[in-house]
Amino acid sequence: MEVYKNSSFRVEERVQDLLSRMTLREKIGQLNQRMYGWDAYAWENGELVLTEAFRQEVAAGGGMGALYGLFRSDPWSGVDYSNGITVADSASAANKVQRYIREHTRLGIPVLLSEECPHGHQALDGTLLPVNLAVGATWNPQLMEQAYSKVALELRSRGAQIGLLSALDILHDPRWGRSEECYSEDPFLAAAFTAAAVRGMQGTRGEPASPGKVAVILKHLCAQGAAQGGRNAGPAAIGERELREIHLPAARAGAAAGAAGFMAAYNEIDGIPCHANEALLSGILRGEWGFDGIVMADGQAIDRLVALTGSHEGAAALALSAGVDLSLWDKAFTTLEEAVKLGLASEADIDRAAARVLTLKFRLGLFDEPYTDEQLALTAVGHAETRELNLQVARESVVLLKNEGGLLPLAAQHRRIAVIGPNADRLYNQLGDYTSIQREGTGTTVLKGIRQCAPGGAEVVYALGCGIRESSPAGLSEAVELARSADVAVLVLGGSSARQFGGDFEANGAAIISEGSPSEMDCGEGVDLADLRLGGIQQQLAEAVAATGTPVVAVIIQGRPHALDGLAPLAGAMLCTGYPGAEGGQAIAEILFGHVNPSGKLPVSLPRSSGQLPVYYNQKDPGRPRVYVDMPSAPLYPFGHGLSYTRFEYSSVALSADSISAGDLKAGLEVAASIKVRNTGTSRGMETVQLYIRARESGITRRIAELKGFHKITLQPNEEKTVTFRLSAEELGVWNAAMKFAPVPCRVTVMAGGSSADTQAAELVITG
Amino acid sequence: MEVYKNSSFRVEERVQDLLSRMTLREKIGQLNQRMYGWDAYAWENGELVLTEAFRQEVAAGGGMGALYGLFRSDPWSGVDYSNGITVADSASAANKVQRYIREHTRLGIPVLLSEECPHGHQALDGTLLPVNLAVGATWNPQLMEQAYSKVALELRSRGAQIGLLSALDILHDPRWGRSEECYSEDPFLAAAFTAAAVRGMQGTRGEPASPGKVAVILKHLCAQGAAQGGRNAGPAAIGERELREIHLPAARAGAAAGAAGFMAAYNEIDGIPCHANEALLSGILRGEWGFDGIVMADGQAIDRLVALTGSHEGAAALALSAGVDLSLWDKAFTTLEEAVKLGLASEADIDRAAARVLTLKFRLGLFDEPYTDEQLALTAVGHAETRELNLQVARESVVLLKNEGGLLPLAAQHRRIAVIGPNADRLYNQLGDYTSIQREGTGTTVLKGIRQCAPGGAEVVYALGCGIRESSPAGLSEAVELARSADVAVLVLGGSSARQFGGDFEANGAAIISEGSPSEMDCGEGVDLADLRLGGIQQQLAEAVAATGTPVVAVIIQGRPHALDGLAPLAGAMLCTGYPGAEGGQAIAEILFGHVNPSGKLPVSLPRSSGQLPVYYNQKDPGRPRVYVDMPSAPLYPFGHGLSYTRFEYSSVALSADSISAGDLKAGLEVAASIKVRNTGTSRGMETVQLYIRARESGITRRIAELKGFHKITLQPNEEKTVTFRLSAEELGVWNAAMKFAPVPCRVTVMAGGSSADTQAAELVITG
Repeated sequence: MEVYKNSSFRVEERVQDLLSRMTLREKIGQLNQRMYGWDAYAWENGELVLTEAFRQEVAAGGGMGALYGLFRSDPWSGVDYSNGITVADSASAANKVQRYIREHTRLGIPVLLSEECPHGHQALDGTLLPVNLAVGATWNPQLMEQAYSKVALELRSRGAQIGLLSALDILHDPRWGRSEECYSEDPFLAAAFTAAAVRGMQGTRGEPASPGKVAVILKHLCAQGAAQGGRNAGPAAIGERELREIHLPAARAGAAAGAAGFMAAYNEIDGIPCHANEALLSGILRGEWGFDGIVMADGQAIDRLVALTGSHEGAAALALSAGVDLSLWDKAFTTLEEAVKLGLASEADIDRAAARVLTLKFRLGLFDEPYTDEQLALTAVGHAETRELNLQVARESVVLLKNEGGLLPLAAQHRRIAVIGPNADRLYNQLGDYTSIQREGTGTTVLKGIRQCAPGGAEVVYALGCGIRESSPAGLSEAVELARSADVAVLVLGGSSARQFGGDFEANGAAIISEGSPSEMDCGEGVDLADLRLGGIQQQLAEAVAATGTPVVAVIIQGRPHALDGLAPLAGAMLCTGYPGAEGGQAIAEILFGHVNPSGKLPVSLPRSSGQLPVYYNQKDPGRPRVYVDMPSAPLYPFGHGLSYTRFEYSSVALSADSISAGDLKAGLEVAASIKVRNTGTSRGMETVQLYIRARESGITRRIAELKGFHKITLQPNEEKTVTFRLSAEELGVWNAAMKFAPVPCRVTVMAGGSSADTQAAELVITG
Repeated sequence: MEVYKNSSFRVEERVQDLLSRMTLREKIGQLNQRMYGWDAYAWENGELVLTEAFRQEVAAGGGMGALYGLFRSDPWSGVDYSNGITVADSASAANKVQRYIREHTRLGIPVLLSEECPHGHQALDGTLLPVNLAVGATWNPQLMEQAYSKVALELRSRGAQIGLLSALDILHDPRWGRSEECYSEDPFLAAAFTAAAVRGMQGTRGEPASPGKVAVILKHLCAQGAAQGGRNAGPAAIGERELREIHLPAARAGAAAGAAGFMAAYNEIDGIPCHANEALLSGILRGEWGFDGIVMADGQAIDRLVALTGSHEGAAALALSAGVDLSLWDKAFTTLEEAVKLGLASEADIDRAAARVLTLKFRLGLFDEPYTDEQLALTAVGHAETRELNLQVARESVVLLKNEGGLLPLAAQHRRIAVIGPNADRLYNQLGDYTSIQREGTGTTVLKGIRQCAPGGAEVVYALGCGIRESSPAGLSEAVELARSADVAVLVLGGSSARQFGGDFEANGAAIISEGSPSEMDCGEGVDLADLRLGGIQQQLAEAVAATGTPVVAVIIQGRPHALDGLAPLAGAMLCTGYPGAEGGQAIAEILFGHVNPSGKLPVSLPRSSGQLPVYYNQKDPGRPRVYVDMPSAPLYPFGHGLSYTRFEYSSVALSADSISAGDLKAGLEVAASIKVRNTGTSRGMETVQLYIRARESGITRRIAELKGFHKITLQPNEEKTVTFRLSAEELGVWNAAMKFAPVPCRVTVMAGGSSADTQAAELVITG
């Protein structure tokens, strides 16, 4: 009896049975994820056919663990509407791949189809959500859970079962081009979104087999945001406590939510590359957290270990023994058979990894139903409800930084509106990196949104002004003339991660931009920036426009926090958001005209300059000011900051107890912290109430503030609500001097308010 | 029999005997170093008398471990020639303090008199050497050993026995105001100077009792240079391997050279303040290295531990148990008796610390001869030989960065020389922080040096131009006129650590400069800078002067590497040095006129911008370029760079073997690497030949280059020398994946040359 084919057996039994039937080569085939999905097919007379190269791959490997990016569309893959797989063709294409592999391998083991979805599915017609930097500003994981659920539905209905999801990187250095993939600089906030993403895409543990769900691979494990100099994949020279306090909480929350897998990070931590880090991939992840899914490599990352081992076989053995189970189109894992022969890799380690990959396939139900209903996708992808959710995420991602004299929302007297700037009317500039080619005519730019939302009688005029990094002043005079003639100038500035066709790929998942590149991109993977000021002559454009005396509303659309200290004094009002997705222009316009009340809060501190870094809010408490003589060390705008068109007033913080013992906390007791919030303005609004602690006298150094709770509430004018936070061992514990996580006797200032820089406080004592 | 008074017994026996006679309070007295030496005395009718406050201190403490800074002169202490102790009075003052303590305590235990000497003795008439940043550029530890020997002689002849010496901090972030106190960004170079300093000041182990020698306290332990953001005393979030590879080698070399003590650093490492870091102060320092001297606290640093413990008693107990033996004018250690009563501190720990302090006093011979010959100092301090050594250090500290068309040395056609800039004629601007008040008329500024060295007939004219951080353009036009009228303009720019009288002290050993301070200082303790460009309008001054068309020689005198990328294109020739001391102006002038051939090599990489940080040369090897899209990641001038008026040509590198086994290295075998250097120019010159390794395939990540040897040689025109380096287990070993230091099988590129960016290479294999 072939136990593995019989769904009445438990997964463990089926895996063991199957493993016992497999040759070493077949097991190794399961550990290999092959590049590139889009090279697996071609079109012949309107028919999708599998390429000879793909067929040879299947034959050579004795099977295939996973196929990456069947639907990936972007300048790098070269997949667009002329040659790619659209919604209608997706499931049949996936089924064709699956069927070929099932029918042309001895044991018929199904293949995993993995897809990039750092902010939605990077496929033709796939929904693209705002990037994580924008998502973090919503402070609304519940909303995001719904949005991720839609992404999962799109993926699964098209035949993919694995989503590669950026979630774990912490934004500690905004020079980093992948800043946009970070939810926040804060581990608590990032953890909340990571858990929401897992729940949304995968359901609760065990559910990835459910209809419309996929298995999530969370990336990157770990500490990629701590790369020195903000240089991509650079070393993180951090210690274990910094790792545990800042860089691991999101991963831990993802594991607790049942994430099917983690992708190891390119970077090293204190000399050990993550792909070779057994303490991380096996010790912490599995030993401490009880994780039992898979660890996937990053693209060709195992090959980089050749620098440590001198051979691909050695690199493969090192990664395998550390705990990597599945490759991502590297050469190293294809040499594992040779590595075993050489005595470098053990068959036991290969069995371990193969069992994990097979377990995931069983959990996904692929042995029982490997094929996808080919009718689902057309109704599931690009659904109106999904578009509405996407729009709502975009709305909540917009942060009102300043609003002098109530310049916003724009009013009836603004009859002529000049819309100016490089991000005003370029759809790709609001989509971020890892973006698929867009169908002509879709999406809403800010200019389009303003034209749609402007009241009747208002005139909307537009000038580009300048590019993102362009140095030519050719467009300045037109912009200045336009501003002079208008009642208000909406300056849409910022950054761009829009890649050009023809980008050069160099083993890094993305085009490498060369030093001093004149490209218009200033962000994205491999696009790190030394100087955080706005690129090109954007500052000059802003100065010229402001000099006309016409009131200026600045809208910043960016993939990293730029240094806006030159811009802020020029603008009466300032909005900012991470790339807000295809609906972002509509969301911004709705806010400009007051159809929507802004509710975003900064998920990162906005710096004044590169010279000020690091500028994140939760730095160690120095007990004394640590200042620069030439610049404040405080950010331009603090973490958690975000204004509204209405006003919120906070009461003082009430604690359910002034003190609690560490023992009681360990036993599960909690302290409740409550604060009343009243809408004292005239419009309905959403407010994110934030709770921070500042602990002292706990035996190790602590941070100036640590976010430990947040609630987003809606208040009508004059309405008051009481928001209550629970402070348990989880929130009040700390990695103590002996590097154990536990509540310890200490003094805690509990702070609540609408920004990290504006809180009410109460004192709590944790006794011994 | 009072064993402790009898020098025929061994030190251990004397210590044990004395301890057995002491009360708890008397022991605790030995653990306290009191502030401030300069408050211990006053002048009455030309007679030095001990103050009542001092007498009460002696009575209250039951003795005194040490008295800090009896001779310290600076704006903070308020000690100058009107009220301080000059050379002639020093030994009698020290003897008076010593005698009082001996005669007014029950056991007559002598006191340690400790003095600041981060770059020479910070006392009236004390010799001030160039700061460490300049010293590092000499690449000449032998020369420095002689210079430090003179400093020790000055200290001891004046009656002090302890020198507090900056040596251990690694310059990883030039924003840090204490950059000037770092020898280098490189651990190997810093270690060589640290060992030289110990040998010079203390002799070999056991010699501090010798005439003219003192006990050295090396500061700071550890990793203060890794402070986040370059903010003083900021946290170092680094891991153990980074700590061991970069921040500990200098301390280890100092311990091996027999340093009497270490001062703990203010900063934390990964959550644990150094003063509470038992793993560092006891585990590594004593356990691994076998160190048996004392650990001293930094100023009031133990009091900062109250943030961890909630009480001074708890802070004292924490520091004591971690391994701190002697305080530095904190409150915490004065509460140790109460801490014992509260059960926080153990008497055994107090005995341990007291024994260490007493041991040092016995080793110094203070029980046998507590007093100083009052005739010594007048001949020992400010000796002509010392001045000559100081001048030679300054000469070798000057780095010729560029010299287009042989603009330097200045020649006969330069008949009219315009000397311009804020560092041209301000003596204090070339002395650095921790500088004593100078006797009127002493020292040589660059202007004075140029006037002394200029050939007959040359006319030297001077204009200030602007201040260091001043924004007024008032002086520009005079400078431009002067430049226009001259044959060459010598622009003397840079930074300044010159403190003003009336500076505010806040528990930090130095004046705290407030945020955005308009002071002229841009460097020094507590004076951290966000933007590394030259301060004020110095760049504007340079542009205006260069625009005249008159050839520009730029001389940069600074306490940190500034970003000079704006300046470099304006100057035909460029010299730079750390604050070069009182003889610096002469040294620079000698080089300008070719009396001395420059030989300095950069001990740090010179950055282009704060946005580029970190920029040190020995970063982890990324295996691929890590670039910024808007700026090179390479420094403006690389580590080890420095030109000469002659030229040196290098042969290829010859190795004594192409391979060696790790086992043979462990057994003590070595590989020799040789390179021939020829002076192909027309003048005699000194060249520092540098040896680097770049290792691969060693099981952990490695650095792009690691300095493992250097030799400074002198070559006559056409002379050739062969320089040979020994590569042993020490140079070829590494902190392996298991965090053990050992040679491991790997491939090593051995590189030798005159700069880290210009080397010849040979390949070495370390086999298993």
